[in-house]
Order: sequence, then structure tokens, then C-alpha cells
Amino acid sequence: MTAAPVRVLIASALESEHVRRIAAVDPRIEVLHAPELLPAPRYAADHHGTPRNLTRDQREQWRSMLAAAQVSFDFDWSDAAQMPANCPELRWVQGTSSGIGEFLQLTGLGRSEVTFTTAAGIHAVPLAEFALTGLLYFVKDVPALTRWQAARRWERYTTRQLAGMRVLVIGLGHVGRKVADVLSAAGVEVWGVGRDGRADRGSLACATGISSLDDVLPSVDGVVLCCPQTPETEGLLSGPRIRLLPKGAIVVNISRGQVIDEPALIAALADGHLGGACLDVATVEPLPEDSPLWAMPSVLISPHSASTVASENAAITDLFCDNLQRWLGGEQLLNVYSRDKGY
Amino acid sequence: MTAAPVRVLIASALESEHVRRIAAVDPRIEVLHAPELLPAPRYAADHHGTPRNLTRDQREQWRSMLAAAQVSFDFDWSDAAQMPANCPELRWVQGTSSGIGEFLQLTGLGRSEVTFTTAAGIHAVPLAEFALTGLLYFVKDVPALTRWQAARRWERYTTRQLAGMRVLVIGLGHVGRKVADVLSAAGVEVWGVGRDGRADRGSLACATGISSLDDVLPSVDGVVLCCPQTPETEGLLSGPRIRLLPKGAIVVNISRGQVIDEPALIAALADGHLGGACLDVATVEPLPEDSPLWAMPSVLISPHSASTVASENAAITDLFCDNLQRWLGGEQLLNVYSRDKGY
Repeated sequence: MTAAPVRVLIASALESEHVRRIAAVDPRIEVLHAPELLPAPRYAADHHGTPRNLTRDQREQWRSMLAAAQVSFDFDWSDAAQMPANCPELRWVQGTSSGIGEFLQLTGLGRSEVTFTTAAGIHAVPLAEFALTGLLYFVKDVPALTRWQAARRWERYTTRQLAGMRVLVIGLGHVGRKVADVLSAAGVEVWGVGRDGRADRGSLACATGISSLDDVLPSVDGVVLCCPQTPETEGLLSGPRIRLLPKGAIVVNISRGQVIDEPALIAALADGHLGGACLDVATVEPLPEDSPLWAMPSVLISPHSASTVASENAAITDLFCDNLQRWLGGEQLLNVYSRDKGY
Repeated sequence: MTAAPVRVLIASALESEHVRRIAAVDPRIEVLHAPELLPAPRYAADHHGTPRNLTRDQREQWRSMLAAAQVSFDFDWSDAAQMPANCPELRWVQGTSSGIGEFLQLTGLGRSEVTFTTAAGIHAVPLAEFALTGLLYFVKDVPALTRWQAARRWERYTTRQLAGMRVLVIGLGHVGRKVADVLSAAGVEVWGVGRDGRADRGSLACATGISSLDDVLPSVDGVVLCCPQTPETEGLLSGPRIRLLPKGAIVVNISRGQVIDEPALIAALADGHLGGACLDVATVEPLPEDSPLWAMPSVLISPHSASTVASENAAITDLFCDNLQRWLGGEQLLNVYSRDKGY
């Protein structure tokens, strides 16, 4: 069989074992991979990394790879916004992040003709585990345990039980559904609100549309934010809505910082209205050094890393290989970014 | 219907709503309850509490209640060992703890004719949640998160994933089975070792007898100790066995401190062989102020409270009411302490 090659650019750091798996998907695939030109990862599955100082020849080599690419694994680290101009053959970019809507807006790539697929779903299990960790951290009062431990104080106390609590999951995409599954398996009564009141309840005890949010907030012990950042979700958990939650409620944010009114969150933590907040994201990242959140005992901050597990690249490669087969077979790709929905 | 009354002594602090439920089980039941004579609870569901200074009259009143009791909810706080002498009518004590074997040995009550039932199972859900909390605490490297937070440092990192890990549950009673269920629901591959290689695998991926312990330790990412303390389980997780675990393994102890060789555990944490230890129990309790465990960053200490949740007394009362009905109906009680097995 002779067929035109499909040139696949590897545009962010990826272990050679995974690159080999991509090359092995189909004989038509020609992988363009020059690891020495890519930013150096600072940790496993780092898709940003530290850019290298390329020589003039190396810059030229990178430009020629961009020019040849028809498919790209991740965005051009050196100038994503210019990909449509620098990559005339480019028809599809497989992203390595779940949420690329804001990035496509900022770079203007959303206005191009290129197809974008997200890594949505890849991060669902680690994010769901992080949400569970955050809830248990406060339900079991781990901050008190570590304080007492530092003081060498042994005093029996009464904890709470997660099983039987009611937790609201906001956003019912891949991540929200997985969070619901994991919490439900731990005995939590999970309520969900999505873009619309979807019929498929899955592991949810109760599912409603986002318009019912104000009605359900007073009835839940905790909230896990899993929605994408879109114009509709910015500021979704507003100050008044935080106050609708019962005293002592726990907030977990694995969405984007912009989805919560951060000053209102800080106020509700400071005056004890909220029992705890576990935040993988912040309105400004890195979280500014003078943010009051750092020093609050009822806050657990994770540096936007909850989705990043050591096995992440293996999972993204699985998805990309699946999508490559679909692409070559003319089938519908998984996780296509919708310009209408913004995710 | 006229029938002889069954006098039920309430021997540790119990909320009046629960006492009323006990009284309502059957018209024959006559509850002996004088809350002002009982130790004052220091926290919800505290079954020890601070003993009160009773007047001479009050001491006499307590003695007459003991003398009349046929059934007792919990042990006599003032002199458990003398219950057979002070309670000539006593035929059954419902304990409020899961593990009463050592207590019955120490007090000599195990040699009496009285029937003892434990609260085994009541604590299974909170203990399983605590085991899950302990595993996630180290898998997600929460100690690093809190260190970075204290330093106002935002730096992305790679965490691990609990789902897909292999965890060994030692002890397959109520608690061990519930731990297995909860971990398995979170995607953990749970192996179990019990007294014998029980046929009923339940949520276990693999179940073997305690004699295979040395064979399985090298293959697991973590261990949760759930066994009762008996002569056979003392020192079960010995120094050599700790070294059989792979480097970085996590140990959770929700059994009794005596089940682990504590100096060997400390050494394996100090030299980094173990990745973390989450300990609800210690060989000597309260954990002595000079124990190295207090200051170890890879240790999370809970003051023997993991089983104590606010809803505990409601659950123990449910069990006691069920058992009272069985007692009145001449049926087999739940959770009867076996003098042969020691639990």
C-alpha cells in the first residue's frame, strides 16, 4: 500500500517510548521529533517546561518541522498564535490540557480552520482523587491533626464522616462525572448541576440544570467545581452564592480560578462561614505571594498540579493514538473542541 | 403481657435521645440511667470521659444500680474488673469498642460467665475513611503541599495516582472488609490476608492466609493494618517484614500499636525506606512526648480517634437495640466476643 505520509509533529516533551507508540499506529505516519529543540520538562508530564536557547540552525530546523506538520501533538511552544501562518499544512492539534478554550481565545487560534482536540478525560481520575483528598482533608480535620502533632499533643477528638454527606458537583463533563463516581463510591450523596439538566443521572443522586444552582446550594455540605471556564461560568460561585452554602461547607476548586469570586471566598473563610477550601487553581497563577489564602489554616493550596500524575503522558498518548487511527480512517475524533461551547 | 423486667444499665455517657430508643425496644425493658453519676464526655461519643467526684450517696446509688443490672451498655467505669462481684445479676455487657480482647484479659473479665458483645462494625466506615485519608495524604504528597504553602511557594509538581495501586489489607474482619470495599471503589487493587485464606473474596483482587504474608509484602504499594490485637498479631509487622515492602510503601495502622514493631517502623521511616505512615494507634498511648514519630514529616498521627465520629453513638445504639431484641427473643446476639479467638 502506498499512501501519502501523515507528518505528526511532537511539539512538547514526550518520552521516547510514547513517541515510538505514536509512530507505530500506522505505516503512513511520519513522526517529526527533535527532543533537543523542545522545552525541558521540569517534572514528569510537564507540557510547558523551560525553553532552551536554540542556535540559529536549531531555530531553522524547528521552523521547517512546523512547516511540514499536518498534525501536531501539543501547540508550538515558541509561538502558538502564529501556528496557522507557520504551519500551512496543519489541520489538527491534539492538546495536552483539558481546558484550552481560554488559550484558543487569547492566541486567536480559535478563529483558525484547524481542528483542536483536548485531553479532557485524561485528567479525570487524578482530579477526582484530588477532590476526594480535599474533602477528606477537612472532613477528618487533618489540619488539626498536623497542628497537634507539631505540638506533640495526643488528645482524642471526634471527626466527621464523609459517607452520608451531600456534595454538589458543578459541571458534569468528563471530570465532574468521574468526581461524582468516586465520591458516590465513598458513600457520598452526590448532587450535580450541569449546563442543562441532563437526563443521564449516572452516579448522581440528583441532577439539575445550572439555573437551579441557588436552590440547591443551601442543602449541600460541600461543592466541587469541575466546570470549564467560559463566559457563563466566570464568577459562577459568587459572594452571595458562597453565603447560600451552609456554615462549615467545604469548597473544592479543580476548575479554573475565575469561576470563584476569590475575594468573597477569602472573606467567607476568614469569618468561618466556610469550613475549608481546597484549591488547585487561583484567579492569578502563580498565586501572588501576598494572597491571604497562603496563610489560612482552612485552605489547602495545590499549585495547579492536581491533574498531573506521573502516568499522564501514557494516558495522553493512548488518546492521541486512538485519535490518529480515527483521523486516518476518516472517523470522528474524540474530544473535539467546540467553538460554540468554548470547550 | 406480664413478664419479668429486664434491667438495662447505661454505664457510659449516652445522649438521652438514644437512651429513649433503648427503652422503647420492648415494654419489658427497664433502663437504669443516671447521667449525673457517669464520667463527663470530653467529646461526642467519648466512652471514657472525666470521672466525677461522687458523694457518698451517689456512690451508693451507683452500687445499687450495678447490683440490679442484668444487661449493661458499656463497662462499669469505676471498677470494671469487679463487675462479676458487684453485678450478681449481670449476664451481658454490650461494649462500645471494637477491640475488647486486651481489656477483658487485663481485667480478668474474660474468665467470667458474662456474655460480651463488641461494637465491631460500628467503626468500620470511619476507620475505612481514615485509611483512605492516610493513603491519599501520602500518595498526593499533602505534606509537601502544606510545606510549600507555608513558604508561599507555587511550583507545579507531579503527583501519584491511588487508582491502580496495590494495597494489602491485613485482617479481614468488619473493618478490613470495609477498608477493602472503600479502597476498591477508589480503583485500588486490594489484596487481603486474613487468619485463614477465606474463600469469600468480596472486593479483594486476591485473598490469602496470614502464612503467605512474607510472599505478598514485596508486591504491594501500601499496607493497612486492620487485625485485632491477639497473641498472634503482636509484632506482626516486624522489622524484617517492613523491609520486605518495596521502597516508598505506605503503612496505615488502624489496628493496635502492638501489631507493628514501632522502633523498626521509625527506623524505616527515618532512612526513607517507607514513604509514609499514618498511625491512629501507638505502642504506648498517649504517644510519649519524646517519640521520634511526632517530628517525622512522613508521619501522620491521629490520637486513636479515627473510629470516633459524631454519629457513633447513634450507630452503637442501633446495634444495641438490635441485640436487645435478639436477647429478648432468645436469638443469637451479634458481635459476641469469642474467648477462643480473643476478639
